[in-house]
Amino acid sequence: MSLYNYVWTQNGIIAKDSLFYPFEERGLQFGDGIYEVIRIYQGNYDLLEAHIDRLYRSAEAIRLQVPFNKETLIASLQKLAEKNAVETDAKLYLQITRGSAPREHTFPNVPSNLYAYIEQSARPAAQLQQGVRTILTEDIRWDLCYIKSLNLLPNILAKQTAKEKGAYEAIFHKNGQVTEGSSSNVFIVKDNVLYTHPAAQNILHGCVRNRVLNLAAESALEIQETTFSTQQLLAADEVFITSTTSEVMPVIEVDGNCIRNGKPGVITRKLQLAYEKVSEIQETAFI
Amino acid sequence: MSLYNYVWTQNGIIAKDSLFYPFEERGLQFGDGIYEVIRIYQGNYDLLEAHIDRLYRSAEAIRLQVPFNKETLIASLQKLAEKNAVETDAKLYLQITRGSAPREHTFPNVPSNLYAYIEQSARPAAQLQQGVRTILTEDIRWDLCYIKSLNLLPNILAKQTAKEKGAYEAIFHKNGQVTEGSSSNVFIVKDNVLYTHPAAQNILHGCVRNRVLNLAAESALEIQETTFSTQQLLAADEVFITSTTSEVMPVIEVDGNCIRNGKPGVITRKLQLAYEKVSEIQETAFI
Repeated sequence: MSLYNYVWTQNGIIAKDSLFYPFEERGLQFGDGIYEVIRIYQGNYDLLEAHIDRLYRSAEAIRLQVPFNKETLIASLQKLAEKNAVETDAKLYLQITRGSAPREHTFPNVPSNLYAYIEQSARPAAQLQQGVRTILTEDIRWDLCYIKSLNLLPNILAKQTAKEKGAYEAIFHKNGQVTEGSSSNVFIVKDNVLYTHPAAQNILHGCVRNRVLNLAAESALEIQETTFSTQQLLAADEVFITSTTSEVMPVIEVDGNCIRNGKPGVITRKLQLAYEKVSEIQETAFI
Repeated sequence: MSLYNYVWTQNGIIAKDSLFYPFEERGLQFGDGIYEVIRIYQGNYDLLEAHIDRLYRSAEAIRLQVPFNKETLIASLQKLAEKNAVETDAKLYLQITRGSAPREHTFPNVPSNLYAYIEQSARPAAQLQQGVRTILTEDIRWDLCYIKSLNLLPNILAKQTAKEKGAYEAIFHKNGQVTEGSSSNVFIVKDNVLYTHPAAQNILHGCVRNRVLNLAAESALEIQETTFSTQQLLAADEVFITSTTSEVMPVIEVDGNCIRNGKPGVITRKLQLAYEKVSEIQETAFI
């Protein structure tokens, strides 16, 4: 994974090696900020507007000033990709914090800090083909996970535990109900019905989640945006997770239990292919 | 509020203006770290060991490597105070993150980043004398607030709301039960019994909280470490909050309602004076 050379900040495009922050930065001391990760396929942003719309929603929720309007922000991200001559699959990381100021909980009267950089990022082709293992873990996060904030400690701890158990993702459950993954949304298929947690305040309203619901609707699949239990998860016909970098990722195992026959399901595969098509991905992950 | 000139990092003592962090720092991108704020009275650390003990407990809880053993850490903080020739009332801020590394949820194999700095900080004398206003707000934080982590977004939002309502602190409640303040622990006195939330996983185990419980025990006050409701809070004879910088701070108003006659209570005052004594504070805030 290598970073492209130029980063964008509120002060313009600069070389990545020249970007540093003081130790009294509110991201660094409070996690007082928001972020987005945006997919780039063959040099082109995918779902750019949807991500930027969500960025503004996150900002509003934490009363953070985005230093640019939407049009300028999008144009600047396009310029950043051009300046870096990005042609490969990649991802953009963008974050905005409440600025650099003496440490005090209350909001300082200083400009926000924004930075964005682009990193090479291949599609997880083998996993998309074969599916991935997951673990279950209790959802101990705060109540407002629809905000894509920099407070990610519980997500980190869950993902690390997953990795140590040989799994790709940790799936959160609260009071027996599945919420989402540590960096993904979770879907199950049972008797040809697609279930996923409603877009409530306690899960991220994933851009890929939303696209998949649209694709499912177009294919006349019955959709239930409703909570489901860990039991229902384990007894599902098919399970998959969605995220910007994982796309539509088949889940073949939960806590050591195979999902049905331990192979990606038919509906999952259909959605994966539909996802490739609508994202205008040139090379399929499926031969 | 001015910072002393020298800061301490894992690489030694340096001038504060020379300390910067790269944008791929895990504190900055994930809030992946822990911190402590330690009181300094007339150049001397107060409760130093208790804070350092808690730092190690926080580190263990998030599986973070503290780059020094306890003795070295304490000796280094003493050296930092000496190097800065601190003689005033002040506070030390110390934080440790999981280091600088390409953004990935799972733990990187890099050294932790530690920094500590000292800031001048007068005692809040007028507030200690007169008491402060507070507001109630729902506790939407994660489940592990005993960890003093850098994930402080809900605390910030609550404190800002308090400030805008002319209050000093926001008091959290969950399912009708008071947990703690956005940066303090909460106590009430009713019929000569002192109540505070038990030191469970969902509140910070405050060093000052602990000292106050010891002082109360010494003065033969009956102590109940048990949850109490917002109703009980409003109907209390006395209310106070505790924190490193607020010490034992009388609360005279909650959400616009006076606590009894709107003046600091007798037991609160006793504990304030006992606190000054045990902290070896030279100048009293009470004439």
